[in-house]
Formats: sequence, structure tokens, C-alpha cells
Amino acid sequence: MAKQTIPYKIYLSEDEMPKVWYNLKAVMNRKHPPFLNPATLNPCSADDLRPVFCDECIEQELNDRDLYIEIPEEIRNFYKMYRPSPLVRAYCLEKALDTPAEIYYKFEGNNTSGSHKLNSAAAQAYYAKKQGLKSITTETGAGQWGTALSMAAAYFGLDLTVYMVKVSSEQKPYRKEVMRTYGAKVIPSPSDTTAAGRKILEEFPGTGGSLGCAISEAVERAVTSDSCRYVLGSVLDHVVLHQSVIGQECKIAMDKYGIQPDMIIGCCGGGSNFGGLIAPFMGGKIAGKNNIDFIGVEPASCPSLTRGKYAYDFCDSAKTTPLAKMYTLGCEFMPSANHSGGLRYHGMSPIVSELYHDKYMRAVAVEQTKVFEAAEKFARTEGILPAPESSHAIRVAMDEALRCKETGEKKTILFGLTGTGYFDMAAYKAYNDGTMTDYIPTDEDLRRGFASLPDIPQNR
Amino acid sequence: MAKQTIPYKIYLSEDEMPKVWYNLKAVMNRKHPPFLNPATLNPCSADDLRPVFCDECIEQELNDRDLYIEIPEEIRNFYKMYRPSPLVRAYCLEKALDTPAEIYYKFEGNNTSGSHKLNSAAAQAYYAKKQGLKSITTETGAGQWGTALSMAAAYFGLDLTVYMVKVSSEQKPYRKEVMRTYGAKVIPSPSDTTAAGRKILEEFPGTGGSLGCAISEAVERAVTSDSCRYVLGSVLDHVVLHQSVIGQECKIAMDKYGIQPDMIIGCCGGGSNFGGLIAPFMGGKIAGKNNIDFIGVEPASCPSLTRGKYAYDFCDSAKTTPLAKMYTLGCEFMPSANHSGGLRYHGMSPIVSELYHDKYMRAVAVEQTKVFEAAEKFARTEGILPAPESSHAIRVAMDEALRCKETGEKKTILFGLTGTGYFDMAAYKAYNDGTMTDYIPTDEDLRRGFASLPDIPQNR
Repeated sequence: MAKQTIPYKIYLSEDEMPKVWYNLKAVMNRKHPPFLNPATLNPCSADDLRPVFCDECIEQELNDRDLYIEIPEEIRNFYKMYRPSPLVRAYCLEKALDTPAEIYYKFEGNNTSGSHKLNSAAAQAYYAKKQGLKSITTETGAGQWGTALSMAAAYFGLDLTVYMVKVSSEQKPYRKEVMRTYGAKVIPSPSDTTAAGRKILEEFPGTGGSLGCAISEAVERAVTSDSCRYVLGSVLDHVVLHQSVIGQECKIAMDKYGIQPDMIIGCCGGGSNFGGLIAPFMGGKIAGKNNIDFIGVEPASCPSLTRGKYAYDFCDSAKTTPLAKMYTLGCEFMPSANHSGGLRYHGMSPIVSELYHDKYMRAVAVEQTKVFEAAEKFARTEGILPAPESSHAIRVAMDEALRCKETGEKKTILFGLTGTGYFDMAAYKAYNDGTMTDYIPTDEDLRRGFASLPDIPQNR
Repeated sequence: MAKQTIPYKIYLSEDEMPKVWYNLKAVMNRKHPPFLNPATLNPCSADDLRPVFCDECIEQELNDRDLYIEIPEEIRNFYKMYRPSPLVRAYCLEKALDTPAEIYYKFEGNNTSGSHKLNSAAAQAYYAKKQGLKSITTETGAGQWGTALSMAAAYFGLDLTVYMVKVSSEQKPYRKEVMRTYGAKVIPSPSDTTAAGRKILEEFPGTGGSLGCAISEAVERAVTSDSCRYVLGSVLDHVVLHQSVIGQECKIAMDKYGIQPDMIIGCCGGGSNFGGLIAPFMGGKIAGKNNIDFIGVEPASCPSLTRGKYAYDFCDSAKTTPLAKMYTLGCEFMPSANHSGGLRYHGMSPIVSELYHDKYMRAVAVEQTKVFEAAEKFARTEGILPAPESSHAIRVAMDEALRCKETGEKKTILFGLTGTGYFDMAAYKAYNDGTMTDYIPTDEDLRRGFASLPDIPQNR
């Protein structure tokens, strides 16, 4: 097919927007091992999960049969408020790098939550409403996920309680205000609203809280109420499924213009953005239809893929969740003060982990100051001020484009730009002031983290 | 023409994007009176303005002959980075209001500066570059304009110095960081870098500064250098001209779908957004081709159109600029603490003023708490968290839609959504906490403001 002139930004029309999510698990030759009930070490059944999650999300979590899962019309209508997101041809960046490579990015930041998180928030809120629930609850650290869920809950008419890590709620009062504006109740965690919170407060009266504690409080709130469920913003298979709307839109837009990506790059925290971005393309690779180079990018300070172990581990540091087989640094691994809040997770999506283990993709770890150098360059040439998380992908995309300049190769590079950095200016300030430092965990740091892996037979 | 189904969002293709700005002055039956040199009270010549502004901007400022002015390709390429902006059909808001009215809004917030300001920043930076200048300078209060200009200066490779009102730079450190990330030098004003700043610092050592003082410093920087010029973000005719890209895109999109607006609503601070939004539609009204109801919305706390005088006044409170004939509250009118920073201006675009004086449009003043009530409703139904400034237009659009519900009229309403409120969360917090108050100036407040009008013959 003859290439047309590619516009700066490709927007699908409403007719062209995807009507189905892409369930990557259905085409994977090896499925990732099942979640385990930590008490029995038996695979989790739907009934095990029912007190915590919505029924439809559990169904999707366990579904590895159906390649396409219909996006309900109500969710598609919600998506129309902020989707399609643009697929952008980075003409200005290409020129600035003087590279023969063609660079594209899928920009998910043009919505009030500022990131891709809204794609799954919308779906999970809808399913909760459909099930007749009155309320949902979650935890949030940096606040992106809490904001996204607040928007979705307001739209579908659900009460939402967000447990926000206390120190974050104090450091980011304006994130909290966005959630409040959408009608969410934001409770600094630990709080006296749950037994878990009261216990922590008793033991550590002045604590600033932790994500692990906030998860425990939200889960407790869900399991102690018939009309409330817990929702999670990453890691789980159904979240990756919802995020496949990103990859689906990319694929439709690229097919329309006859663009064949040679590499697809995304940042990896919990893995849902990356898993969603690559989904239909990876399906093609598994079926032998392409040989795309997939690259997951993680911070050198929290290198779960590049230096972690493929093992069963808890999803939270409080050790309350089911066990997932994933690349992990150990649930008690304590990431250093790294500004990319959304990438500070000890584990990784089981789907992404299995793909990495089976060598369908590779992973790269990058250091923070190099990431911000790329972020600044990108902001100045492409206009968009990127989130620190997203800038990990920018860094590697730029490195690959510069490699093309050396070799003269005209590769087509696609990367995921997950969000904007408007609420991350403290990190930019550190970079602008020259006070930002890099941190790479020592082998001893990693050893301490691995020591927290559950003591169970790992080869199941 | 039969109406097609209107998508949630209408994006023009690159081919459809406007190639010309619409110079409203060329079709106005009465042109606004000329700027006056305050020393001689003679009309300002191009030579009077040359030490301050770029040559091409002066040419555009004085041009009332050419209806269409070509947008240079370099600026159109810049526009392609963040334009076209979407024209959104507010299906969700219509449903929430249960109104027969059809509501559209043109959303200018999907860029890093967060507002429409970038449309003129791009043009002014380009013309400075083309003239061979090395640097530009400006002042900023809340920071939106400074951010937009930082982005444009980075793109075109110009040095930029921003004088930021000192108290703002302390209260909004992150706004400052965005500008720094784009390479701008941000100087809290008053500063010791200018004679004007040093004088103020000597007289008032602890002052937090003012917009008037920051303007004086920036203008001084420009006029004392051959390679630097001053750029302004609103009020002036050439800024309104650049902003006409908003109205041009609206008109093209609406014509394409056969949509005829019955009313067009926009917020009015300096008037450039409103003037740009209405430009081609107002041209039609002047030519007798439509009878659109144009409504400018201003805060009740700073009511230059609804309670001001049509008089010659200084554009700045320091009384250093040429005199402009405009609706004004007097250049020393001190707006109360109103959170809509961008609407706290004593005067109004001379173009908008003349149109208002000649009754081609009307104006409405609204109170702050009512504005935030509308903002919250809009955020929860349409997803976008609006800037307080933009929310003035939302308030009146909602009021008009609710009036339609009473009367059963199916009016088509278009309003301008100029930007996002991510950097205005302190104001939202006040609203969420219930501590926000309204303020309407007393007649005595207005009298004090009018007393600062220059003592010259006003009927010229």
C-alpha cells in the first residue's frame, strides 16, 4: 500500500473507534500461572475474589478464551468524551534529533485525570453500577488513579471513597481537590475508618502512611460491605484488557495509513499501560505475522523486569492479596525516592511478566536524570510536558532514534505517552535546579527485597 | 442542508484547518478610535510603537483594511502541534440539564499552556524571530500567558524573560517551573534588573509586586535593547486577530455539519479570546447574514463592560502605555480577591468595546460562587475540569439552556471553553470547603476607579 502523507495527529472518527477490547491472554501460547489463595495455596476461584471485586471484572480476569471482548455501549459513550486519543507523528522531534527514523506516539494525557488510567476506571465503575452496587473504593498514592476513578464514579453516579496515602494527601493537596470536585470522599490513610487503619495508627501514631496500608483499608471497606467493591488501577489482567483500547486505536490508525511499526516502546510500572498498548500487535507477533521489537522501560531504581525474579508474590506490601506469579523485587522492596511515582511498584503485570519470560519482548532500565533530560527535550520540541513515568518511554524512543541516525536505518518507532506532568513539577524543579540524583539499588538492597518473597514452592 | 449525526467531538482535518486569520476590524462599520500617545495625545504611529512591539505585529495592529490575513506556514505548523482544538457537542451536559437546547463548546485547553493563549504566543514569537530579534519579554500574573510564551519561544529558538508578579511566583512555584522547563528566565517582579523595579523596591522594600509594575519592567527591558521586543497576551487588536483562529475553526466545523448557532458565549477579561471566538460570526452579523446573540461574560467583581465607562484610559495601572478607547473601570481600579485571575483587568479590548458600544453584542456579569457551581457540574458531566475564567461562559451557557427548558426553545448554543483549571485548585478548594465568597464593587469603589481616568477630552 502506498504511504499517504501522514498528518501531525491522527484522530479516528467515531465510526472507526474500537468496539472490542483485545484479550491478549487468549492468543498467548503460555498463559501465566493462576492467582493463588495465600491461605490454601490453591488457585483463586471466582468465589474467592467476589467479596473484593465486581463480578464482571472477575469474569474478565479469569477469561483466557475470548480474543475479543465487547466494550459495552455505555463505556464507549464515556470513552467518546475524551477518546480517541491522538496518534501523533513526532515530526518536530524527528527534526530535532536529525534521525531517519519515523517516530509516533499515542498520547493518553488529554483528559482531566491526565493519564490512561481513565480507560479502566470507566470500565470498572460501569460494571459496579451495572451490578447494582452503590459505592466503590480504592487507594491512591500520587493521585492519578484516584482522579480517574473520581471522574468515572461521578459520571456513573457511584459513591467513591479514596484512601490516599497520608503523606501524599498533605504534599499534593490539589490532587485531593480535583477528586473532591468530582464528589469523591478522600480519606488520608491510615485512618480510623477501618480496623487496619486503627491498628497502624495505634502502633505508629505519627506515620505518613503507605500504599500497602491504603490498599488494606480500601479492601477492608469493600469486603465488609455488600454494596461496595474494591477497584484496582493496574497489574491485574482485566485492567490490561481495558487498556487494550489504546493498542486497538493505534492499530486501526496505523493500518489506515499503512504504517508498520518496527518497535513499540512503553513505560512499565504495574504494566497495564504497556500491556494495553502492545496487545493487538503482540497478538500478531505470537501468530507469526510480525516481528516487532517490544520494549518495556522501567526506572533503574525499581527494576522489577531487568533485575527481579519470576516468582509468586503478594501484590501489596501488607501481604493481604492473592499471590501472583510475576517479575518482582519482593513485596517489601522499598524503592528509593524516585519521582516517577507510578513506576514505583515491586511487581509487574502477570501478562507482561509471562511475555517477558517467554522472550516476546525485552526490557530496559533507565536512570532518572536521563529521563528528565529526554522529558525537557520532548517538551520543548513537541510542546507537551510529559509525566515522568511516560518520559521513560520517551528516553528509550529517543535513544533508538539516535541509533538509527548512526546506522542510517529508517525504523518506524511507536511509543506510549501515558500522561502529562502538570502535577509533577516538584520533580521538574529538582531537575531544573540540578539537585536531582540517580539511584540504583545495590545487590544487597535487592537481596533484602527478595527475602520478603513468600516461602512457598515456586515452581507450580 | 439535512443535519448529519453530530459526533461528540469534531476535529478538522489538516486540510480543513484555516489558512487565514479573520480581521474583524475590516468589516466593522465603526472602527474603534486610535491609540493615543499619552504625551502628545496624537494618534500613535507605527514609529511610536516600534521600540516596544515587533514590526509585523504593529502592522497588524493598525491594519483595518484586509479582512483575511494569511497565517504564515511556520505558524500553521506550530498550530498543528496542538490544533485543531475540538468542537465538542455537550451531549452529557444537555442530558444532565434536560434541555431541548443543543450545546457546543470549543475547547482550547488541550495543550501544555492549558489555554487559548498559545494561539497568539506562537504568532508573536514567530514574528520576533522573523525580524531577526534574539529575545522577547513579557509579564505574567497567574502564569498562563507566561507558560504559553515559553512554549513558543522554545520552539522558535528565542530567549525569553518573564517578569512574574513576585507574590504569584511565590504562590505558584510550579507555574514558574513549567516556564523554566521550557527554558524561560523567570524574574520575580519588582526586581533589580530594571530602573522601574529598583525604584519600586526602594520605595516599598517588602512589596509583593503588581501586574502594572511587571509590565513596566518588561517594557523597559524591551525599549532599552535593540534585539528585544515586548509581547502582550490580550487586549490589543493583533492579539484578537491571532485568536480568530478559534472562531475560524468553529465556523468551518459548524458549516461542515450544517450547524447554525443562535447564541455565542465567551468569557471576557482582556477580550482576546471572546473577540477571536466571535470574529467570523460577528462579521456575518455586521453584513446582515445572521442575527446571532453574542454574550460576553465578565465577573461581577470586575465589571468593565456592564458597569464601566467607554473612555480613553491607560492599558496598565502604572500609566506607561498608550491610551486606548475602551470600556474601563479606571486603570487604578483594584479588583477584589477574585480567583479568576485572567479576568481581573480594568479595561477591555477596544474591538470588543466598540462592538458592545454599537450594540452588536451584550454583556452579562456573574458572581463567583455561581460560576464554580457551574464549573463543578460541568466537570462531573463533561469530564473536563474547567478554568475559573472559562467557567464564566459555562455559567451563562447553562443559564440559557435552562431558559430553553422553560420556554421549550431548541436553541443552538456555542460557548468558548478557554482552558483547564489544573493550576487553580486553591480556588476550587475554597469552593469545596464552602469558604468562597462573592464580591460586588460598591458605587463608591467604582467612583474611586473612575477618578483615575486620565484627565483629557474624551470625545474625540
